[in-house]
Amino acid sequence: MPEEIERKFLLKDDRWRGQVERSLDMAQGYLGNSQQCSIRIRVSGEDANLNIKSATLGIHRQEYDYAIPVAEAREMLDTLADKPLIEKTRHMVRYGEHTWEIDEFYGDNAGLIVAEIELGSADEAFEQPPWLGADVSDDPRYYNVCLVSQPFNAWPENVS
Amino acid sequence: MPEEIERKFLLKDDRWRGQVERSLDMAQGYLGNSQQCSIRIRVSGEDANLNIKSATLGIHRQEYDYAIPVAEAREMLDTLADKPLIEKTRHMVRYGEHTWEIDEFYGDNAGLIVAEIELGSADEAFEQPPWLGADVSDDPRYYNVCLVSQPFNAWPENVS
Repeated sequence: MPEEIERKFLLKDDRWRGQVERSLDMAQGYLGNSQQCSIRIRVSGEDANLNIKSATLGIHRQEYDYAIPVAEAREMLDTLADKPLIEKTRHMVRYGEHTWEIDEFYGDNAGLIVAEIELGSADEAFEQPPWLGADVSDDPRYYNVCLVSQPFNAWPENVS
Repeated sequence: MPEEIERKFLLKDDRWRGQVERSLDMAQGYLGNSQQCSIRIRVSGEDANLNIKSATLGIHRQEYDYAIPVAEAREMLDTLADKPLIEKTRHMVRYGEHTWEIDEFYGDNAGLIVAEIELGSADEAFEQPPWLGADVSDDPRYYNVCLVSQPFNAWPENVS
């Protein structure tokens, strides 16, 4: 069974920006959600994929990923996906033995930046970069799928 | 945009059984359903696919179809799909210029048999086989996705 172990953190400051190796613009949306899983369409540069992820909370999640034609992905995002779409730039930052994916969000989620690391096992050690903030792996509010129905700018603490 | 024009009928009698060219066992299930679309996983003999279909009622439906590994399809049917799964045998019957797909259901939908034809346009003519019954193209109860939440044997008229 393909399995993904992922940890997600907030950012303490902007020091990571000087260490970005490459950046990629992404647009993604979700095709409804069952109790069991999320179904995501993502256009990422010249590629597109369809991703199915179990809805299990926490860092262990069952995941399936399929490449699909970009034109079909864009059509599905326009016509079938829940709105608003998630728009973000993914910055790749190498630190120690691992590559961090730092997602900077736009639109209704502007202001949110999270850093993710993928691990081979739940207890795999990794070096903590100095710019790393709070661990939010277990907080469903930060799931991209939840950022559609409850965008960052609509969270009570962010509404001025 | 890939588009599917499909008409669905009940069967008047069993005369079609003598004209079956080939039959294929299928198991399929759905990964939740939004207002906009259904997401279907199907294992069909040695093949499997993931299919996304717009939820528009009637005979015009937007559709996307991707081949996926059978082992992953079975895993998703077991662990992520809504239950009960739809189990059926699809019989192919040639009549005039068209091939009919006649689906014979099992399990919670045993007793239900429907014949489907795919057309190039909504007004394309086709010969009506003598075994063809009522047109149910516009009746959502016969959508496979609805046969999960409301199986044929639980319909009021079928409960004895």
